[in-house]
Amino acid sequence: MKVIVAQKLLQANEEIAGENRHLLARHGVLTLNLISAPGAGKTTLLEKTIAALKEEMAIGVIEGDIYTTKDAERIASQQVEVVQINTHGACHLDAQMTQEALNALSLAQLDLLFIENVGNLVCPAEFDLGENYKVALLSITEGSDKPAKYPLVFHEAQAVILNKIDLLHHMDFDLETMLEQVKKIKEDLIVFPLSAKTSEGMGAWLQWLKSLVPKKKKLFATAW
Amino acid sequence: MKVIVAQKLLQANEEIAGENRHLLARHGVLTLNLISAPGAGKTTLLEKTIAALKEEMAIGVIEGDIYTTKDAERIASQQVEVVQINTHGACHLDAQMTQEALNALSLAQLDLLFIENVGNLVCPAEFDLGENYKVALLSITEGSDKPAKYPLVFHEAQAVILNKIDLLHHMDFDLETMLEQVKKIKEDLIVFPLSAKTSEGMGAWLQWLKSLVPKKKKLFATAW
Repeated sequence: MKVIVAQKLLQANEEIAGENRHLLARHGVLTLNLISAPGAGKTTLLEKTIAALKEEMAIGVIEGDIYTTKDAERIASQQVEVVQINTHGACHLDAQMTQEALNALSLAQLDLLFIENVGNLVCPAEFDLGENYKVALLSITEGSDKPAKYPLVFHEAQAVILNKIDLLHHMDFDLETMLEQVKKIKEDLIVFPLSAKTSEGMGAWLQWLKSLVPKKKKLFATAW
Repeated sequence: MKVIVAQKLLQANEEIAGENRHLLARHGVLTLNLISAPGAGKTTLLEKTIAALKEEMAIGVIEGDIYTTKDAERIASQQVEVVQINTHGACHLDAQMTQEALNALSLAQLDLLFIENVGNLVCPAEFDLGENYKVALLSITEGSDKPAKYPLVFHEAQAVILNKIDLLHHMDFDLETMLEQVKKIKEDLIVFPLSAKTSEGMGAWLQWLKSLVPKKKKLFATAW
């Protein structure tokens, strides 16, 4: 009985996620769903990424949080369009919440949309929001055994950010073990070891994003 | 409809949690439910705590994990009784799973039981397992804004471990802000800043545990 309810909910989620994907494709908005445990550094990564890219592409952000608007305030100070979703206790975003947020955004003007999910390495991995890619963040302070313990999010993701590498020399973190574990879960995962704080390693991540958004609406509009 | 189902599940959980609480009280086992995000250091804290206390009290552990037995293996090497619960995807332990684990333990011989919940700062806070106390762990690498963003677990807890203080000088962590936030959620929360890795600050935590378990079955049995 419980399983039936859960499957119905997931099925309904899939349908709305499909509508979201269609809407985003129609407007040509590349969308990334960022998933990590609390404190892995999603918001700091977004701040640095937006600062580096906002002159060359139009970026929007959907901020998922259980109760607060703290992260949305941090992002809004970067002068990009932000919509806050407060889940009021729910441990993940779903496609329905995302659809409401999409309807509040100027999709026709956006090139790249980040969705910062609720801080939770488990539940958000199960819910398709209609994004193009899921990106899993893991900070090295969480330990190198985490991919094996929480495999689903790494299986669903197309890229992994390995954050806080500035702390590598203060930790017992085994980078080789972690990379091996990740490749065992999914051979073709792209891994970006970086520090959003010091910006070390950010270049490869930014290059990847640029490769995903070849045509920029803003630049195109200016050219004409 | 969704709400009704959720409430029924929570109600059923409450009933079984009550049975667990009764069973644990009958055997005089003090039980702590450890809740944190992945990688905050629950297992390392348990390893150090067990090593420090196992000569003076009989300790058991229930290890919650989604798929693996890695943490249970680490704990079992300490020569204490361990039962593994694998949730197979579920993001938290519930009272039913806990009851099955309790039935597999030698409760009559135990003084202190730790339940290491699934690594998740959100969902486990909603589920009573029948424990005496919830203990929330937060590592300073997660950032000082986490109590305000994930208030429920701090509201439900009686004590907070603030782990990884050996990294304090490498972080932008604001200890004052974090302590203020915690006290705002719950005035009488006990906070233990410590490093399970270096053992700095472990003394106060161990003292608190000893104060909760005044009579030790093993010592009592020996005396007679």
